[in-house]
Amino acid sequence: MPRIAYLGPEGTFTEQAVRQLLTDVASAELVPAESVAAALDAVRSGERDAACVPIENSVEGSVTSTMDALADGAPLVAVAETMLPVRFDILVRPGVRAEDVRTVTSHPHALAQVRRWLSVHLPEAAQSATTSTSAAAVAVRDGNADAAVCAPLAAERYGLDVLAGQVADVEDAVTRFLLVRRPGEVPAPTGADRTTVVVVTGDSVGSLARVLNEFALRGVNLTRIESRPIKGSFGEYRFFLDFGGHVGEAHVGEALAALRRHCQDVRFLGSFPRADEGGSSGSDEAFTDAAAWLADIRSGGRA
Amino acid sequence: MPRIAYLGPEGTFTEQAVRQLLTDVASAELVPAESVAAALDAVRSGERDAACVPIENSVEGSVTSTMDALADGAPLVAVAETMLPVRFDILVRPGVRAEDVRTVTSHPHALAQVRRWLSVHLPEAAQSATTSTSAAAVAVRDGNADAAVCAPLAAERYGLDVLAGQVADVEDAVTRFLLVRRPGEVPAPTGADRTTVVVVTGDSVGSLARVLNEFALRGVNLTRIESRPIKGSFGEYRFFLDFGGHVGEAHVGEALAALRRHCQDVRFLGSFPRADEGGSSGSDEAFTDAAAWLADIRSGGRA
Repeated sequence: MPRIAYLGPEGTFTEQAVRQLLTDVASAELVPAESVAAALDAVRSGERDAACVPIENSVEGSVTSTMDALADGAPLVAVAETMLPVRFDILVRPGVRAEDVRTVTSHPHALAQVRRWLSVHLPEAAQSATTSTSAAAVAVRDGNADAAVCAPLAAERYGLDVLAGQVADVEDAVTRFLLVRRPGEVPAPTGADRTTVVVVTGDSVGSLARVLNEFALRGVNLTRIESRPIKGSFGEYRFFLDFGGHVGEAHVGEALAALRRHCQDVRFLGSFPRADEGGSSGSDEAFTDAAAWLADIRSGGRA
Repeated sequence: MPRIAYLGPEGTFTEQAVRQLLTDVASAELVPAESVAAALDAVRSGERDAACVPIENSVEGSVTSTMDALADGAPLVAVAETMLPVRFDILVRPGVRAEDVRTVTSHPHALAQVRRWLSVHLPEAAQSATTSTSAAAVAVRDGNADAAVCAPLAAERYGLDVLAGQVADVEDAVTRFLLVRRPGEVPAPTGADRTTVVVVTGDSVGSLARVLNEFALRGVNLTRIESRPIKGSFGEYRFFLDFGGHVGEAHVGEALAALRRHCQDVRFLGSFPRADEGGSSGSDEAFTDAAAWLADIRSGGRA
């Protein structure tokens, strides 16, 4: 039975994400970890087989901590992604009505993301913080607060009622999660994949432009870019790049090989099917055609 | 008396930053705001004269919320920046010793950033969350927790003792803050400035590479880049770019004008003296020399 770590505690958006990511969740053992770093280190050590962590626009965990934890330490690769809408359930003990709610609690990020809703619907409720959305559900269950801002999973898990569902100040916000393993087999290309890498370009002027030119020349479309200081210092940077395409495709492979030639360091963080509607980028057919043509003339065939 | 908003509450790192940013803090009225968006909107409406908000690697506020709040709504510009080391004081009521501490509290981000220290020095203490580091100090003062993880300002403000000072798991982490005003006079170039913009490139392949080439061609050195989905959607993106140099310099101005020509949208977010050691980038002298040469030959002078 595979053992899968996820950013805990139980009942958060990350548990919801891991349940969505696994094809056979019934046959897996899900184990909450106390931090992103702990979840990833448990995979590195072999204690867990995979880990589910938030990577973009998260409510629970700090996403920069995920990026740093993937870039440092023994290599890991993402093999799948999923996206969840950032919508909360407002949970109360059974029978409690809106007019009974004197206190509302959650992780500060979750409170911030429903600030407008709370100001309209629970304007008198005093707000307090918890370390996670699940801890908020526990606080309400135990009578330490009247309402909790939670992931949808939490109502059933903690025996609470939904006072209001699908609450979000920003309508279409989503959080993206990755399923991460030790390096091994790369998932097969599907025609609609995403690849993610982290590169250290060196600090000469134009070094990042050169990287992006290698992508642009081959029709590879970036979907995300972010610079992060290395080791907390603002002096040296690395770049996290996501783009459409799969490492197994000729044009993507050629772009990555070019990066390998002129960057100080390139770490491959995975190729996997995209959870959104974007396709792969670039035309691999043109590249395979050209490679066949080149092989042909090299072997003395048509010029 | 100028009225300056900052991300509150009182006694946090952002208050420390605003005190460091103002040359004559005694003659200013500092007013805490409940969110980054509220602080910036108070400047937009004219209710406040400036706002201090975290922009990079923050402990208190979500930094993406600052980026989004600067990119949307009426234009604002940064006129100064400052950096603070991410180091915490562990505060207790006077007389309380480490062995007396049963509970420790703070904002979840602050707890996360001293996780290792707590596991060594206060391994038995139960952790709970607050909405800010200052709220943690209040909780300790009021006897609701034994120790608080706080900004250095908080000890004196809330009458607490420092159990341990300068605590940080990551030695050299810093948070960067901006002082933001309504558009008006741009601070004079100092020779060591930073400029910040947000651009919408359009979604053709290579559009970001083209932007970075305009910088590279003129020797302008990026110090930060980050893509952010527009309006919470992952479909369309804008890019936040920081680079060495000042809008008043010829080579920086020429690069910005090039962006204006081929981006869908460019918003100038300010040029101001750098708080770190990096200088301006590129050589403005070569550009002013070339401009003089061009003017000369246009007027029939030497070719």
